[in-house]
Amino acid sequence: MEAIKPYKKSFDYSYTLGAFPTIELLKGHPEVVKGVYIHSTFTDKENIINICKQNKIPVLENDKLISKLSDKENCFVIGVFEKYESILDGNKSHIVLVNPSNMGNLGTIIRTAVGMGIYDIGLITPCADIYNPKTIRSSMGALFKLRYQHFDTFDQYRKQYDKHDVFTFMLNGSKTLEIQNCPKTDLFSLVFGNEATGLDDSFLDVGTSIIIPQSPDVDSLNITIAVGIGAFVFTHQSK
Amino acid sequence: MEAIKPYKKSFDYSYTLGAFPTIELLKGHPEVVKGVYIHSTFTDKENIINICKQNKIPVLENDKLISKLSDKENCFVIGVFEKYESILDGNKSHIVLVNPSNMGNLGTIIRTAVGMGIYDIGLITPCADIYNPKTIRSSMGALFKLRYQHFDTFDQYRKQYDKHDVFTFMLNGSKTLEIQNCPKTDLFSLVFGNEATGLDDSFLDVGTSIIIPQSPDVDSLNITIAVGIGAFVFTHQSK
Repeated sequence: MEAIKPYKKSFDYSYTLGAFPTIELLKGHPEVVKGVYIHSTFTDKENIINICKQNKIPVLENDKLISKLSDKENCFVIGVFEKYESILDGNKSHIVLVNPSNMGNLGTIIRTAVGMGIYDIGLITPCADIYNPKTIRSSMGALFKLRYQHFDTFDQYRKQYDKHDVFTFMLNGSKTLEIQNCPKTDLFSLVFGNEATGLDDSFLDVGTSIIIPQSPDVDSLNITIAVGIGAFVFTHQSK
Repeated sequence: MEAIKPYKKSFDYSYTLGAFPTIELLKGHPEVVKGVYIHSTFTDKENIINICKQNKIPVLENDKLISKLSDKENCFVIGVFEKYESILDGNKSHIVLVNPSNMGNLGTIIRTAVGMGIYDIGLITPCADIYNPKTIRSSMGALFKLRYQHFDTFDQYRKQYDKHDVFTFMLNGSKTLEIQNCPKTDLFSLVFGNEATGLDDSFLDVGTSIIIPQSPDVDSLNITIAVGIGAFVFTHQSK
């Protein structure tokens, strides 16, 4: 394996920082893993070494590289992988993020979606870098449980997945999200906008626009919270 | 007003970074504001200067100080205030956070609580610093809409507020949070644990323990998401 460098978006590889996300990577997508670096003081090597052996993945010790890549955080394992992309499952419900800009938020949304049993996320570009080690870290490795696909426009997504009932979350949405009146649907796309700007008014007409009721004492909810509430209510709708 | 220094927890004052949280501070708690600094290039001074005049709060120009306190972020206004603490309203529902450790999470929870119409937060120490400018920033100024009170132990909180129905959110909770069977109660305390450790088993017996259903593919939900879902369901329970 060639030497790796501190992450840049232009690379065709990225890496996980820490044992937990590295194990998630090895379990979910062993076929893209180029190698695993382990710190000489790491005590719990056996599990990782076994998985790597089974998949013929090289394991290397390189303390200097690990401390260089991991900044100041405690980190004993790094998994290097080739970037990959999936096709969404057209028969499963989706979350669609239009121009999310913050990597921490993107990672938290991935963790939340997987927690709610939604394994398909569409991303409309421009979009925070899903491969950045920061995104992976805040997803707690849930990235590797997920199908994700990038699209240039929402229309492009919609043309490919035209069976879904679309719900756009907007502060000027026409329907208030309530526990009792959540639209009943088995196949849905929940669509959320950028952190600062939300979804523009063109999204009022692409499906049913939804507002999460909130007090006048806040400008809006954090996008990760909106996704959490929306995903919980839609995945637990009364039948 | 004396010169202020980059924030430390030991100070008896803190400050808001940015026009939006400073205006929230001035509206919510003018009585604790010691002064407001404005950058010479700030164009929207009038509103802030008017509120300060009404409340006899000094307004100063000090570009050097603003750039020193605000690190690298764009920031044109800083509001300096004396730290204060409130007594919770015993007739309103509460959120109680046991040893939250992350300031960003604490701020996001404050914003979420206020968004859901819950204006009382109990904090069990040790606890992330609610006055730190980072907490205030991630609360988007919602801190100043809120009553918050620190307690040494959960028992101390409970002795003071003994009328509330207590719900503890735990991965080994006895009751699954579902939209249809949310406990019906008008006066509740929703209790959440530390990001890394959650609530210990002693909390199984202080009220009704609740688990938010989640897929086996995540370790847990982010605490901010758990608070968002819990607060939404409890404030929208079917009557």
